[in-house]
Amino acid sequence: MSSFTRPLARLIEQFERLPGIGPRTAQRLALHLLRQPDDQVRGFADALLNAKRQVGQCQQCFHLSAEPICEICRNPERLSNQLCIVADSRDLLAMERSREFRGLYHVLGGLISPMDGIGPEALQIQSLLERVTERSPTEVILALTPSVEGDTTSLYLARLLKPFCRVTRIAYGLPVGSELEFVDDITLARALEGRRPVA
Amino acid sequence: MSSFTRPLARLIEQFERLPGIGPRTAQRLALHLLRQPDDQVRGFADALLNAKRQVGQCQQCFHLSAEPICEICRNPERLSNQLCIVADSRDLLAMERSREFRGLYHVLGGLISPMDGIGPEALQIQSLLERVTERSPTEVILALTPSVEGDTTSLYLARLLKPFCRVTRIAYGLPVGSELEFVDDITLARALEGRRPVA
Repeated sequence: MSSFTRPLARLIEQFERLPGIGPRTAQRLALHLLRQPDDQVRGFADALLNAKRQVGQCQQCFHLSAEPICEICRNPERLSNQLCIVADSRDLLAMERSREFRGLYHVLGGLISPMDGIGPEALQIQSLLERVTERSPTEVILALTPSVEGDTTSLYLARLLKPFCRVTRIAYGLPVGSELEFVDDITLARALEGRRPVA
Repeated sequence: MSSFTRPLARLIEQFERLPGIGPRTAQRLALHLLRQPDDQVRGFADALLNAKRQVGQCQQCFHLSAEPICEICRNPERLSNQLCIVADSRDLLAMERSREFRGLYHVLGGLISPMDGIGPEALQIQSLLERVTERSPTEVILALTPSVEGDTTSLYLARLLKPFCRVTRIAYGLPVGSELEFVDDITLARALEGRRPVA
């Protein structure tokens, strides 16, 4: 639009590139930042550059980390005999939010997807195998999305790791708070399949 | 949360400060940016700093501008005999999106609000008066929000400018696409008050 001065238009474009940010929101965010004091805008720019420059991967679990070994792997209170396998750092963070898991993680960096040309060698699976054989955890918990790719990866990992330890996967079923009549067929089928004796 | 490495947590905090961005969205945006190439992240940081550094106010209409006189004021195709008064640059941009107005603007920088201690002298009203007396436009159009502050400001400006030119305000009434039965009482009252003969 001709009514934006160039430097402002460029900032709006940058916001528009972000996922889930439309033109109107991008404009609102850019105008908001222009009204903030200089040092706050500089703080934002610094945070961007520092995050990109400093954050890499943990050498043990491949979670995002600014240090060679991440905080979770370094935490002596975490149980090293349980290893939870997740596709990426976002899934790891979701697991952490549930506050239910106190073991360690291994971040695959994706899921096996022959359709997209992603085979096991493109993921952190060799490093996982080494970790399992060297550290021999008692249990590996697969926490992968219920999808074709997730199931393929779970199956592949289960076969690979079963000789070394117990392999489980998180339960698929009805989300808490959902109404049975509105739950989709496949979830209901999975919930039935995964039924457990009432204690 | 302990599961975020510091530089990432700092970036998430910066996003959370933006209006309408919650913790989950902030996290999603920060993680997205970490996955982008270096030069794109640098481009974002540069756009932030450049926008803040270069964008000031047009010396004539007080719209955001990187030059002393903004693109709208410099555009010879805009009608200089019509002057539209808006509270801020966001309102100006909304007017521009409607593509209905081809004149020039004057950005007040807010609305008169005695409750918040904002009087006429805190706004670009003196400069407006000078502009109107010097350039003598044929019409000044008040495009201010229908609110106590907007109405107070409209009334103040109408009295101030009427000796020099025709003063109008944009119509208040039913939004296009709205259902009459769901429109609030005050809007309906304003719509009735603003009724016009059917052509």
